[in-house]
This record gives sequence, structure tokens and C-alpha cells, in this order.
Amino acid sequence: MEFPSKLIGDAVNEFSRLPGIGKKTALRLVLHMLKQPVEDVQHFGRSISKMREEIRYCNSCHNISDQEICSICSNKSRNQSLICVVENMRDVLAIENTQHYKGLFHVLGGVISPLDGIGPEKLHIASLFKRIKSEGVNEIIMALSPTMEGDTTVFYISKKIAENHPHVKVTTLARGVSFGGELQYVDEVTLARSIAMRRPYENYLIKKQN
Amino acid sequence: MEFPSKLIGDAVNEFSRLPGIGKKTALRLVLHMLKQPVEDVQHFGRSISKMREEIRYCNSCHNISDQEICSICSNKSRNQSLICVVENMRDVLAIENTQHYKGLFHVLGGVISPLDGIGPEKLHIASLFKRIKSEGVNEIIMALSPTMEGDTTVFYISKKIAENHPHVKVTTLARGVSFGGELQYVDEVTLARSIAMRRPYENYLIKKQN
Repeated sequence: MEFPSKLIGDAVNEFSRLPGIGKKTALRLVLHMLKQPVEDVQHFGRSISKMREEIRYCNSCHNISDQEICSICSNKSRNQSLICVVENMRDVLAIENTQHYKGLFHVLGGVISPLDGIGPEKLHIASLFKRIKSEGVNEIIMALSPTMEGDTTVFYISKKIAENHPHVKVTTLARGVSFGGELQYVDEVTLARSIAMRRPYENYLIKKQN
Repeated sequence: MEFPSKLIGDAVNEFSRLPGIGKKTALRLVLHMLKQPVEDVQHFGRSISKMREEIRYCNSCHNISDQEICSICSNKSRNQSLICVVENMRDVLAIENTQHYKGLFHVLGGVISPLDGIGPEKLHIASLFKRIKSEGVNEIIMALSPTMEGDTTVFYISKKIAENHPHVKVTTLARGVSFGGELQYVDEVTLARSIAMRRPYENYLIKKQN
């Protein structure tokens, strides 16, 4: 595509370098921006640059933060003996949105992936063990994606914990059929494993009454 | 969604104000940008701001341009007596990409849409008639979208041309079944009209031989 203006061409190129945005979408975004007030577009450009320049990470859990220690780590009402290990900030947000987790986090910044040249030394694994050593941690929840790389990372970390800190419990998220999901739409592997890993029936209503 | 950093929140908000980009996509884009070098992200922000600040429009056809008169209008090898009226810059790009149109353009900047408060006075219609009056224009091609608003605009402009400049021919794009399209997938209205507006068979190969 040849653009009537170099300015447009540059802006379209910049947008189309973002993931999931092709040339046509980029052009649509650029034309949208041309209709906005100049100040709004300047504010857009400044916000993005500023975000990248001034972004900082929590010294403890490596989550994105405006302070040295993030609001989750510095919240004394949270359970300091429980650490949930996740891949990135998005997973922290997802778990925080459930409003049902009251422990701390540790953001690895990725998962072990030898094919991409990502070994344990490129992730925030050393600092996780520092935390386990210095803080009174009882339990580590491994909340990584159920992929090859995720499973490898869980295996690596849990093995090191078992060797060096045998008193620390390592747990993973429950896996099985989604709550509210219809059986006919569940994939075969999940369904087969959910049958193999079946659990005793717990009726929460009966439990509460007792 | 509550973000661990105001910087992230601001950037996500800015992205999610763009058309077709929701909060989740915005967050994905922001996390992508965090992985890019600072200079790249600064360049992104600057390109977008600069584009909006310095953008200019051709004084003649109102297309986006870096100069006072755009490269199409100032190209003397193009047919100066033929003007193609389009809605916006995207349509100019689409027609230019065919490499089969050698006339000039006129960008209206929208179509007449009383429901949205867009009357003829908000579009570049007056300047179109100025061009028709001053330049030796023979033909106006109305290349607007086949919507209610587009058809209204075509009707309005063609009526004014017929009243004031009866020597100027007004044409519209050919409508019918797409080239290479299979009949079974053509919508009923298009198919019905294509039968009603059928044309004498022209065999281009035979014509060329004669």
C-alpha cells in the first residue's frame, strides 16, 4: 500500500508492528486518530511512552508496580506464608479478579523453554528461593499454564523445593471439567483425566448445616 | 480490572478507546510494549503524535497530503477532466491500488447523514462545485458506498450538477455479481438486480482479434 503522506505511512507501520494488528487495521486506527482532537492524540502518545519509560517492578515479587514494593507484597493483611507462582502480570490480574486469593505472588517473567533459549537462569527463580529461605513460607502454589513448558517449569521448581526446603508444601491448581461446563463440550483428555482423578462427593450445603 | 500500576492503567485506557480494541486486547498490547526497547516505544508515541499534529490536507481534493497540493492533483499526466468523488482517504487508496484509474479525486470527508447531523454543508461539496466551475471537468464518477447515506449523497450531488452544470456527465460504479464470484454465494438483491440490469455479451478476446 502506498500512502499519500509519509506521516500516515510511519504511523501505520508503527501500529502494524503490534501483535494481532495488520496493515488494514493499522490504517483504520490511524484514520480514527485523525478525527480525534490533537490534544487527545498527543496524550495517547505520551501515555504509552511514559508507561514504558517509568515502569518499575516490585523488588520482591517482580510484578509491575509504581513503588519499590508492590501493593500486594506490602499488604500486611495478606497471608505472607503462601506464595502463588505465575508466569506474568496478566495471571496476577486474573487471580486477583477472583477476589478469592489472599496470599502473595511471585512473577517468573516466563516459563522454561529450551527451544526459545529460555533457561531457569533467565527467569526470576533464584529470587523465589531467596524468598522461601528468608520469609516464613509454608506453601507454594504453582499456577502456570498446562503446556509442555509450564509443566517443565513446575517440575524444575518443585524438585528444587523438595531437595532444599522439604517442609514447604508445593500445590498446583485443580484441573478438571469447568464449573458450569457441559460434558459434551469437554475435550477428551480433560474428561478422561477428570474420571481418573475423581474425588469423594462433597455436599457443601450439608456440610454447612452440620 | 484493577491494575497494579497507574501507568499501566492509563496506557490500557488509551488503547481501549481505539475502535475494535477492548480492555483485554489493550492489556495484551501494553504487555507487548513493555517487552520492547524503550526507544522503540518512544518512537511509536512520537510517530502517532507527530502524524496528528502535522497532518495536512490537499487544498484541491482534500485528500491527506504532505504538501499544499497532493501528488495526485499535481500530476499533470493524469486526466484533469475526470473527478472521482469518494468518501474518505481509504477509498482513494483502494482505487489507486487497482492502478486502473488515471483521473483525479475529490474526498468528501463523509456522506450526508441527517440522523447523525451531517448535512451537505459539513462535507467538501461546495469545493467540488468550485472545481467543476473552474476546471474543465467533463465527468464526475460517484464512487460512494451503496448505503442509504451514500445513495442520498449521490442523489444530492448529481441533482445539483444536472441543474447547474448540465454538460458534466455523472456516472457511478458498475454494480453486479463480483468477478470470479460463485452465483450460489451472491446475495438475492444483487443477483435479482444483476439479472434485471443484464448487458449484451462482450467477448474481449474476439474484440481484440478484430
